Amino acid sequence: MTRTFYEAELQEQPTSLERLLREGRAAAEAAAEKVRRRPVRFAVLAARGSSDNAARYGQYALGIRNRLVAALATPSLFTHYRAAPSLGEALVVGISQSGQSPDIVEVLREARRQGAATIAVTNDAASPLAAAAESVLPLLAGRERSVAATKTYTAQLMALAMLSAALGGDEGPWTELGAVPGTVARVIDGCAGLGSAAPRFRDHPGLVVVGRGYNLSTAFEVALKVKETSGILADGYSSADFLHGPKAILEQRQRPPVLVVAPGPRTFDDLDGVVRLVRELGAPLLAVSDRDEILEGADVAMSLPPGTPEWLSPLVAVVPGQAWALGLSLARGRNPDAPAGLTKVTLTR
Amino acid sequence: MTRTFYEAELQEQPTSLERLLREGRAAAEAAAEKVRRRPVRFAVLAARGSSDNAARYGQYALGIRNRLVAALATPSLFTHYRAAPSLGEALVVGISQSGQSPDIVEVLREARRQGAATIAVTNDAASPLAAAAESVLPLLAGRERSVAATKTYTAQLMALAMLSAALGGDEGPWTELGAVPGTVARVIDGCAGLGSAAPRFRDHPGLVVVGRGYNLSTAFEVALKVKETSGILADGYSSADFLHGPKAILEQRQRPPVLVVAPGPRTFDDLDGVVRLVRELGAPLLAVSDRDEILEGADVAMSLPPGTPEWLSPLVAVVPGQAWALGLSLARGRNPDAPAGLTKVTLTR
Repeated sequence: MTRTFYEAELQEQPTSLERLLREGRAAAEAAAEKVRRRPVRFAVLAARGSSDNAARYGQYALGIRNRLVAALATPSLFTHYRAAPSLGEALVVGISQSGQSPDIVEVLREARRQGAATIAVTNDAASPLAAAAESVLPLLAGRERSVAATKTYTAQLMALAMLSAALGGDEGPWTELGAVPGTVARVIDGCAGLGSAAPRFRDHPGLVVVGRGYNLSTAFEVALKVKETSGILADGYSSADFLHGPKAILEQRQRPPVLVVAPGPRTFDDLDGVVRLVRELGAPLLAVSDRDEILEGADVAMSLPPGTPEWLSPLVAVVPGQAWALGLSLARGRNPDAPAGLTKVTLTR
Repeated sequence: MTRTFYEAELQEQPTSLERLLREGRAAAEAAAEKVRRRPVRFAVLAARGSSDNAARYGQYALGIRNRLVAALATPSLFTHYRAAPSLGEALVVGISQSGQSPDIVEVLREARRQGAATIAVTNDAASPLAAAAESVLPLLAGRERSVAATKTYTAQLMALAMLSAALGGDEGPWTELGAVPGTVARVIDGCAGLGSAAPRFRDHPGLVVVGRGYNLSTAFEVALKVKETSGILADGYSSADFLHGPKAILEQRQRPPVLVVAPGPRTFDDLDGVVRLVRELGAPLLAVSDRDEILEGADVAMSLPPGTPEWLSPLVAVVPGQAWALGLSLARGRNPDAPAGLTKVTLTR
């Protein structure tokens, strides 16, 4: 079988992350320095699609590590309602692989006009988004040919983690970041068998993906990846929100499989609760975890190496999900590189 | 057939909204006065489930009408990571029907400790959430017996609209608010035929609900209502996000029905694009709209009376979706009052 771009780009991730870490630090430090010169009270992250899932990671990283409340932008305020909120004391970050989406560009333009600190996180340093922002964090990921993003997603996470580290000013986080590319490489190796497990799940019309905290981003991104490449109804949930109503979908006759993203210690109790519920109801369980007790009971076990600090775990934990989406897409006879009806650059207002 | 609590509470909405408007204005004005005395730079809205969909409405109302960036809170920062962000210059609003959810209470408690302006929007003025906040906006909706919220959801929207009006200080919005209960009553009358349309859709395993701007809240809430009461994979999307990937799910063999929430003029172009796509691909179209050209092409037309200002349209547009969820639940032989596995009060950390 010819290898798809999707698979090639998934496997490029250790290389692209290492390059970004090596060549992108100066840009992150310079952007952080400009932020520090301003009276920044909160952050706004503007993005769509996979980039919006990266933004959700940024929401936790900036909130927990930099004490900044980070709002996910509502771009229609800027484009449809022409009623931009007050952004003068905000850090506004636009995230877009292509840097083309007019709504995201408009948020950055207006923020800069109001005097906000503005940063573009993009794979195209010559894009309109890069031009609109005061600082640019280029992803340096090389061209991404698959419509469904893999290497630019993890590069966006890495860029946001680097921004958080630069804003903090300590050296420790940079050492932790340095270990990520190697860990991602090990996880990719560990995913080799996933393709053969996928055909059993080919005919399920849906998939539930649950995470929490830092890895809510992972749950959303894995669900989106499966949706894009397999066209099934896959949705991501916070474990807390899932228990507030959506868990009713596990009471169907044909229970959808549940993929639980459960690395890191802080959210174990929550995700253990979801795992217990899934087992009790007899739904198929797919687990991404670094704990044996979770993996042993799973129908599909996606193992993570121990040792990644929780704030960086989304860079690692998304990889088995990307690989699962690939396997499922191929098992369903689809082309993961070119999902029906989708194009690489989506221009929304 | 015995009428369900869900149906009774759905029909109570004009009465409960009118009561809240009449008896709740003083509390909204008093809360707004306390907010004005502080250097508020942004808002944080903390909620789960249906209340989180109301929060999403608040995000647009506060952003567009009060120029406040409003972040949806990430409660795990407070509970799991013990790393509360800086909230001293925030307006922090906790929204919960029961006022019991420990994670939401914890966000309010910490915000108040930091000196933020804090408001509880709850149906129980004696709840822990009410005790944690400086100001309380009681929903005055009477006891809600159905597990799936209807009248407390629209009351939450109304309370947030009243807060926005009180923060603005003008009388005009109050006049607009005054017309809402009557319009909701007319929409309820117009939904009488929906129950007989539902059986045709009984066997679809999924539902896509699309809205944008103010009515992104409606799309999320209708999807949640259907999920809770029918147990199917229903999900809400912004039209912009839907086009960035999830639209691939319309390329399945069994295309899920798409419910488009399309009132108000500002987002017409976006939703018309989704409607065109749905027609092109031959997926069943359900439409909530006040425009004939949208309703005429729909498989199920849910008509809204003209004249509601867009900022208040979510109070009106959610009603046909609530009625659709009821019809579908009954058609599937379920009890909408007591969805399998769910309880009225969910305690998440």
